[in-house]
Amino acid sequence: LAVKSAPHGVKMTVVRFAGSGGQGLMTSGRILAQAAGLYDGRTVVQTQSYGPEARGGAAKSEVCIADAPIDNLKPTRIDVLLAMNQASCDKYSGDLKPAGVLVADSSFVDKPPREDAYCFPFTFHCRDVLGNPVVANIMALGFLFILTDVTSRQAMDRALTDNVPPRFLELNLRAFEEGAREGAKARDARAGREGF
Amino acid sequence: LAVKSAPHGVKMTVVRFAGSGGQGLMTSGRILAQAAGLYDGRTVVQTQSYGPEARGGAAKSEVCIADAPIDNLKPTRIDVLLAMNQASCDKYSGDLKPAGVLVADSSFVDKPPREDAYCFPFTFHCRDVLGNPVVANIMALGFLFILTDVTSRQAMDRALTDNVPPRFLELNLRAFEEGAREGAKARDARAGREGF
Repeated sequence: LAVKSAPHGVKMTVVRFAGSGGQGLMTSGRILAQAAGLYDGRTVVQTQSYGPEARGGAAKSEVCIADAPIDNLKPTRIDVLLAMNQASCDKYSGDLKPAGVLVADSSFVDKPPREDAYCFPFTFHCRDVLGNPVVANIMALGFLFILTDVTSRQAMDRALTDNVPPRFLELNLRAFEEGAREGAKARDARAGREGF
Repeated sequence: LAVKSAPHGVKMTVVRFAGSGGQGLMTSGRILAQAAGLYDGRTVVQTQSYGPEARGGAAKSEVCIADAPIDNLKPTRIDVLLAMNQASCDKYSGDLKPAGVLVADSSFVDKPPREDAYCFPFTFHCRDVLGNPVVANIMALGFLFILTDVTSRQAMDRALTDNVPPRFLELNLRAFEEGAREGAKARDARAGREGF
């Protein structure tokens, strides 16, 4: 665990995308980083690992978003974790802050390590409803987007358009939209439950 | 300046790509990171910045390559700097190790800050000889590749193929090849001069 840190007192949000190689985690990280940095004008540093470190089913891409320069690199905790498989859930959920948000793809995560995890079968849903499991990362990004409110919707749409081949844009936008809708449902269900 | 560091005694190479937004620095960094990490099987962490930090003409992408896990984040010096404009040359050349390699695009760098800089007009050459200045980053990558020997050629070709749209692949491979040839010429010229 090693992420960027902002000067003391500056609010910084750290989002980690984790799972197996090929699940689109680097792309999701890049889209979020570009949305927040290029289009929302925030300070963003994105880190990604390749090679042996990224193997063993726990590859990761990390995005640090702040409103001030991000100067120092030192170990710190993460605010949001998207875990697309069990290995990355097991490996990284301990890095999450107590009040952090864990989103898990329950297509591949049987045992979420926290009771308050948001579980949704992104990959199975994209396969069965959208006809293509490959956009699971984008659906998960939409889900995260609603729960964390870390970028504007307009910035997300622009970054999606930049990073997706034109012929797949409609599919990706639909996946993002479905993710946002499911994320809103999950958030509202929890708000209702916590209200009792 | 803040990059990854490997455990004491482990050889690590840090390459920084710097210049203006739109010069393809993120792409170059990603290609090198994937070549070394996915195809050469080395341990690689890539960092890139977006937003205000990346503005002012000194955007950067950094690739750390090692043969062991990259654990700690702490300030360290860089081994190779590609500077695609004067601002990034001025801002980052001080981070270079004394024995480090500075490659500058003399299309935009008038005053290289070190006498031993390798200067070549990548952008003008690509515009005039290849008909498209946009592949200057790939030509510079070929130049760097020959000077630093940090990945295998086969890995580079695979990573280039992964990251370039098929219709532009031939142009990019040609730019890489021209860069490698010019890099070899510059290296040999220097070896000859140092021989006297």
